[in-house]
Amino acid sequence: MNFSSKLLENAVNEFGNLPGIGKKTALRLVLHLLKESKEDVDTFASSIITLKNNIKYCKTCHNISDFDICEICNSFKRDHSLICVVEDTRDVMAIENTNQYNGLYHVLNGLISPMDGVGPADLMIDSLVERIKNQEVKEIIFALSATMEGDTTIFYLHKKLKDFNLKISTLARGIAFGGEIEYADEITLGRSITTRVPYENTLNK
Amino acid sequence: MNFSSKLLENAVNEFGNLPGIGKKTALRLVLHLLKESKEDVDTFASSIITLKNNIKYCKTCHNISDFDICEICNSFKRDHSLICVVEDTRDVMAIENTNQYNGLYHVLNGLISPMDGVGPADLMIDSLVERIKNQEVKEIIFALSATMEGDTTIFYLHKKLKDFNLKISTLARGIAFGGEIEYADEITLGRSITTRVPYENTLNK
Repeated sequence: MNFSSKLLENAVNEFGNLPGIGKKTALRLVLHLLKESKEDVDTFASSIITLKNNIKYCKTCHNISDFDICEICNSFKRDHSLICVVEDTRDVMAIENTNQYNGLYHVLNGLISPMDGVGPADLMIDSLVERIKNQEVKEIIFALSATMEGDTTIFYLHKKLKDFNLKISTLARGIAFGGEIEYADEITLGRSITTRVPYENTLNK
Repeated sequence: MNFSSKLLENAVNEFGNLPGIGKKTALRLVLHLLKESKEDVDTFASSIITLKNNIKYCKTCHNISDFDICEICNSFKRDHSLICVVEDTRDVMAIENTNQYNGLYHVLNGLISPMDGVGPADLMIDSLVERIKNQEVKEIIFALSATMEGDTTIFYLHKKLKDFNLKISTLARGIAFGGEIEYADEITLGRSITTRVPYENTLNK
């Protein structure tokens, strides 16, 4: 790209470093911000700086929070004997949006991925073991992605936790609601046949 | 979305206000920046603030520039008798990338669009007329989008400029290079038949 201004080029390069944002999109975003008022641009820029400078992570579950202990971990209405293990804060938000879960969370901050150089020591695994030792936890739910990295992480965690007196479960896998059989991938369809459930069990949902 | 942090929600809303960026993408971008170092986040934020505070527009052609008169307008190598009228700085960059044009530009900063409340007075039209009066301009090229707004703007500009002793031209319209006939839209295909060119003219390209 031939930029007519070094300052413009600099800003476009910064935006272009964001994931999924190419040079053309970056240019569109920067030109959009240039048309906004100075106050709006300041508000935009300071929102991310304020976040970076003041962000806290819950000391118990490591979710992003404005407080030392997050609202979920602090709530008396939640079931403290149930911990759902997730990859990051987006998964917490996704599960909270379902309104189907009333336990606590534990954010690992990633998944084991030797290809990306992420090992167990990089994740919040020790503090999960500590929580299980010190709190009265009855069940752990692994809500991790159905990928190689997710499965590896579950395998590792299971080995670490299997000697505790705990129920360990993972998310149900199968055909999505609204999903059409003919478009389901073979592995999912095959597994959902071998792990079929009695029809009566689906009625009391 | 259920945000676990007001600061996070605030930053996501700011990013979500950018054109073409939805809430989910905004969250992904913000979480990406959160993982970066404090210096990198400062560099990102200050790049757009510095741009906004120090941006200049060329006093002649109104293109974004670091100087009062942009490098193109200041260049002795360019043909100063030729002005290409464009909508915004992105069009200047696109045309510069072709390496096929050696004249000057005039950035209108928009197109006439009554639907969006943009009239001729909102565009840099008067200064274009001034340039034509004061400089020795031989030809004006309208390089505006082939849309309703573009055509309206060309129509208006043509009326304003037709009494000057000027050659006025627009971009050639037709089937794109590499374009397949069967996928061309009807208007383009129909027009490219009625405005067909002698085969010999295409050989000296």
